[in-house]
Amino acid sequence: MSRPSNIGILALELYIPKTYISQSDLELYDKESKGKYTIGLGQTEMSCIGDREDINSISATILLQLLEKHKICPSQIGRLEIGTETIQDKSKSIKTYLMSYLQNSYNIEGITSYNACYGGVQALFNTIAWIESSSWDGKLGVVIASDIAVYEKGPARPTGGVGAIGILIGPNAPLVLDNLRTSYMEHAYDFYKPIPSSEYPVVDGHFSVNCYLKALSQCFEDLKRKTGVMTLASLGDYWCFHAPYHKMTVKAFFQIASDDLSSRLPHFDAKDKQSWGIVNEYLRPLWNEKCEKATRLGKRVGNIYCGSLFMSLKSLMTFENIEEGKSIVMFAYGSGLAASMFRIVARRKVQMDQGILMDLGKRVKLNVEEYTRRMSVREKDYERKGFVPIDPIRELAPGTVYLDRVDEKWRRFYKRTENTPKL
Amino acid sequence: MSRPSNIGILALELYIPKTYISQSDLELYDKESKGKYTIGLGQTEMSCIGDREDINSISATILLQLLEKHKICPSQIGRLEIGTETIQDKSKSIKTYLMSYLQNSYNIEGITSYNACYGGVQALFNTIAWIESSSWDGKLGVVIASDIAVYEKGPARPTGGVGAIGILIGPNAPLVLDNLRTSYMEHAYDFYKPIPSSEYPVVDGHFSVNCYLKALSQCFEDLKRKTGVMTLASLGDYWCFHAPYHKMTVKAFFQIASDDLSSRLPHFDAKDKQSWGIVNEYLRPLWNEKCEKATRLGKRVGNIYCGSLFMSLKSLMTFENIEEGKSIVMFAYGSGLAASMFRIVARRKVQMDQGILMDLGKRVKLNVEEYTRRMSVREKDYERKGFVPIDPIRELAPGTVYLDRVDEKWRRFYKRTENTPKL
Repeated sequence: MSRPSNIGILALELYIPKTYISQSDLELYDKESKGKYTIGLGQTEMSCIGDREDINSISATILLQLLEKHKICPSQIGRLEIGTETIQDKSKSIKTYLMSYLQNSYNIEGITSYNACYGGVQALFNTIAWIESSSWDGKLGVVIASDIAVYEKGPARPTGGVGAIGILIGPNAPLVLDNLRTSYMEHAYDFYKPIPSSEYPVVDGHFSVNCYLKALSQCFEDLKRKTGVMTLASLGDYWCFHAPYHKMTVKAFFQIASDDLSSRLPHFDAKDKQSWGIVNEYLRPLWNEKCEKATRLGKRVGNIYCGSLFMSLKSLMTFENIEEGKSIVMFAYGSGLAASMFRIVARRKVQMDQGILMDLGKRVKLNVEEYTRRMSVREKDYERKGFVPIDPIRELAPGTVYLDRVDEKWRRFYKRTENTPKL
Repeated sequence: MSRPSNIGILALELYIPKTYISQSDLELYDKESKGKYTIGLGQTEMSCIGDREDINSISATILLQLLEKHKICPSQIGRLEIGTETIQDKSKSIKTYLMSYLQNSYNIEGITSYNACYGGVQALFNTIAWIESSSWDGKLGVVIASDIAVYEKGPARPTGGVGAIGILIGPNAPLVLDNLRTSYMEHAYDFYKPIPSSEYPVVDGHFSVNCYLKALSQCFEDLKRKTGVMTLASLGDYWCFHAPYHKMTVKAFFQIASDDLSSRLPHFDAKDKQSWGIVNEYLRPLWNEKCEKATRLGKRVGNIYCGSLFMSLKSLMTFENIEEGKSIVMFAYGSGLAASMFRIVARRKVQMDQGILMDLGKRVKLNVEEYTRRMSVREKDYERKGFVPIDPIRELAPGTVYLDRVDEKWRRFYKRTENTPKL
């Protein structure tokens, strides 16, 4: 078999649930000051689900959406890997569950890559390496990055979200990883899920921001060192950041701008407020040009953990024509911690596709009382067996896989809503 | 960088805890008939741990053992991936925890690959593909396959075990994967861990045996199809099987022998007891030659889930000089289900190394009452925070990482016993 070239992203799809809440409603409900979530976090809406969807179902929904939209048969797939931090049956990977949707195809490598918010990136790296390796079977790879991001009542709850990304990977792709990449891994308890019987994490928010920024700076410095003279501007035409909430991506951009300026301007001190204020003004247009479009979907969907960085890329592809030769720097961060910075280059023009905006437009807004009720049901269901979910199926979008029942042995059975064409 | 060749296993180490129980003691304690576990399952001893060791600590122990024995600095490692099904802090991968033992090295890719008993094989495949890929940084890869296999009181308890494998991966290796490989993946609820607050799985033992044998037959047929005329005997000089218990490996061998004979002898019917009885006799020497040595360690350690298949390889390397050119067929099975069959070829002679027998010889036998008490402590600790483990540290082998305390935020802190040289 001849060696493949230009291995990368052939297609990227995003599934968002049909229900959401408004962050300003949540501010009111939480009796927080106006703007705390909408301005402070920079989030306007947050996707949510009830008891009809779980990590298996949203992963299945995006897998089917990806295959159907791009007319891919299961027999064309040689590898399927999931990146997630959401656990359903501890030992059984989501990948094995998804095999039930790939009828008559069994020789498909890959399982689940696991680390808070980071698994999707490792799955992407693994799948590209597989295609480059001597073990490649000539078929396509699929990466699913999916998570349900939910927090207990309190300050972290507005940083939740739900979503799943499906990525089709193969040779001769329009978006190719150019091997300029680096990682930063460290042991940290900034965010983790040590309570077995709870879906919620334990979070040290302030520490986690510092971990994120430290990993970001380390990766940025390492890439600059590897490339010699490259700067923020020359390293990438666009920048996509992992986005636990919008304001974190703004922080990220200004952090590396500050790192960059401090190292290049001999008398510049980012900690000097006046100098920083002046420079800051000049940085806003740079932010708008390089980053802002990639953050638009995230503001309306929330944090989707492993899919978040790829949702940023999807957002960029929704609002920008990416011209041939343009580069996108991607920064992945998963608490605990695992981080990577890597670069994608457009080998040909990628025309903007605003299809996802239709899905956003068709969503149903829940009031926060109803959202809170649904979260309580999820809390109760977390350890339950032998039950039928109660939330209405009519609320799900066409083509959504949903939980039909859980039997007395905790086995989960799913169905799918009718898949009427969206266009 | 020139393309590397002969990428494979440079070194393989096994960590087994210092405590074990006797399977005949367990038969007595469980009031089962004599031989139920020792003959029925074919197991003689079972490794176990108390409250001083967990998945993080055993993974750290084997990592340090591998690096120290082979004089590898953290700066020589470019990738570290864990294969496991044992969960400590749900979202935080074991990999990030292990970073605390790789001082001053942070740019190390890889996280945790997750699916019952199978993660280690995926981690191996991923690491080899990484070295073959254009993203390889010229460094070595490390794969840790570790698990704590524990079952609630009852018929499955004797199929437990504890152990961790460390594999050093790089070019010019003595044991090389030759790309003859296939996988079989399917959705099955044969063994899974759906109860969040329990360390124990839910098992449908009979169904799981059938799933294992089905996956085995499918992989075997696919490899034979790929290679044309190859048979059990010509496919591999040695065979290593995933071993939930010894008798399963015997079943596995006779299953493929039966598949093989049925397809090649026109009038042979494996279901005909008389014919099968005759053939069976002739198969025993073949079993002894090709498989038996690979099963010896497993009989004394038990099931170590993700490491089990590699413990079979370690067992073969302990009791056999593997001559240059000899091949080893490996069959990996993880419930849920994920299975692969692949082949390793010796590029040069691998001299038998019986060092592990010293570790086995130094073990301390616990009586079953004490083992049962320790399991009860583990059950209670599973959701606990803010405690100090009670089991004696003096019982741990030199160089063992152990749990020192768990704080009020469920953060886990570890120490290491003094590492006196073993030889």
